[in-house]
Amino acid sequence: MMIARSRQELSRATANWRHAGERIGVVPTMGALHDGHLSLVDAARQVAERCIATIFVNPKQFNNSDDLARYPRTEADDIAKLATRNVDIVYIPDPAEIYPDGFATTVSVTGVSEGLCGASRPGHFDGVATVVAKLLLQTRADFAFFGEKDFQQLQVIRRLARDLDLPVKILGCPIVRGPDGLALSSRNTRLSVGALHKAAVLYRALREAAARIAAGESADIPLRTAAAVILASGFSAIDYIELCAEDDLMPLAAATRPARILCAAWLDRVRLIDNVALDDLLPAEPITAHLKERLANA
Amino acid sequence: MMIARSRQELSRATANWRHAGERIGVVPTMGALHDGHLSLVDAARQVAERCIATIFVNPKQFNNSDDLARYPRTEADDIAKLATRNVDIVYIPDPAEIYPDGFATTVSVTGVSEGLCGASRPGHFDGVATVVAKLLLQTRADFAFFGEKDFQQLQVIRRLARDLDLPVKILGCPIVRGPDGLALSSRNTRLSVGALHKAAVLYRALREAAARIAAGESADIPLRTAAAVILASGFSAIDYIELCAEDDLMPLAAATRPARILCAAWLDRVRLIDNVALDDLLPAEPITAHLKERLANA
Repeated sequence: MMIARSRQELSRATANWRHAGERIGVVPTMGALHDGHLSLVDAARQVAERCIATIFVNPKQFNNSDDLARYPRTEADDIAKLATRNVDIVYIPDPAEIYPDGFATTVSVTGVSEGLCGASRPGHFDGVATVVAKLLLQTRADFAFFGEKDFQQLQVIRRLARDLDLPVKILGCPIVRGPDGLALSSRNTRLSVGALHKAAVLYRALREAAARIAAGESADIPLRTAAAVILASGFSAIDYIELCAEDDLMPLAAATRPARILCAAWLDRVRLIDNVALDDLLPAEPITAHLKERLANA
Repeated sequence: MMIARSRQELSRATANWRHAGERIGVVPTMGALHDGHLSLVDAARQVAERCIATIFVNPKQFNNSDDLARYPRTEADDIAKLATRNVDIVYIPDPAEIYPDGFATTVSVTGVSEGLCGASRPGHFDGVATVVAKLLLQTRADFAFFGEKDFQQLQVIRRLARDLDLPVKILGCPIVRGPDGLALSSRNTRLSVGALHKAAVLYRALREAAARIAAGESADIPLRTAAAVILASGFSAIDYIELCAEDDLMPLAAATRPARILCAAWLDRVRLIDNVALDDLLPAEPITAHLKERLANA
């Protein structure tokens, strides 16, 4: 497994692969890897001949400097984890490889980026869109893998890849959860043991609301109930809890088309996000079946 | 010569070329082709094995709907001209190929896009940056050719290609002028015969100012003199006339580094732009020599 820290090292390797007709799957990450990230690597290995994982804590997508400073950085551990998964290259760019002197370009997506995390984190999705466009172009990936935990981010990236004609297929992969249902997240490491215990209520409350809305109820009462349960369990604030259309993230009052409940809430000064699709209440299928379906629709 | 109106037709052809190791030069245009555009096509033919000319009147870069409505459209003539120049594909995308339903992405460049035309045409360079990024990615060009008449546009495109890691070299080519020095422009066709006559003063006034500044004078008086001459010759207004650094377009008070005078002025309700480099006052070299030097520096 090669560690590349410059575009030059990266492009030497990818040029050879492309020449040999090998397709490239990329898994962009900010490090602090957990089994959710590793499931994306496994998905990439099933789809493409070559796999690149990128690790870059992107300052442009942090609207809060405290959050950036406290974002976990575990490079040696990350490299060790990726080495067990048959990754070809870990691309850990020096900041100047991403934002060289005089850098002046922003990629912005309207629509799906508005509301939800876009409302509570101004500038966040511009930062995401810009760095992801760059990483997709630097790695010259044929496929890129993103977790559905950051569902709004996934929809922003799908939109920008389509809109800018990037020669890449974007594949969303299911959320990986702990035994108690808590969605894996790098930010979970900042929670105390007690808070980790409380955090699991987030998924349970969303599932409960999703089941009621899927059964035909209007969204209002189930969402308010879920919010009350979350706050009663020790969360300090809820940024949003909403029923949104799956494709364009427009808010819905009821499940009139494929929909998902998305939520962001604060626990122990840590902002957690999660989401549940209304048609996703059965036990998750094995990732291979899931991935095949996504590929067919991509 | 093939006429492609969809991305699909285009990508079928370019995939074959890429597979064969042939490099692609693209000349993005808004049609109404003149010898300036054709010089770009000739440059592309010298550098790349394959040449694509694109014709798309991009609504997003018009800040003025009247200007958009009156922009000349001469598709049959354009195709006939390109057929004489050994172009492989003329890509004339249907608008939905560029801006499909739900299109929501903007590419913005700060810095070089501010001031000059950026100040008098709000939104213009976002429109340019977005469509050019798309055209470069749709054509999968290795080289792209732009005229120096739109010098600020050229610098915006250089910046975005570098910043987004687009796998393309951007090549600026010298302004092509009529016998009286008037820079060729599609908008010239909207001038009356009388106005065409007056228009040539623009280049003469810029050259005169450039010669004085190159000889060591501060910019202020030569630029004011040029402005007075331009207005006295029948132009109705000047949007700007400035001495700017060649690379970052920062305004300069004197020729302390490589510099260019840029001007936009109104004649007969038509907005004309032109520019003169201070080190470019000798008769233009043949385009081949010029191009080799640009390629070496690209």
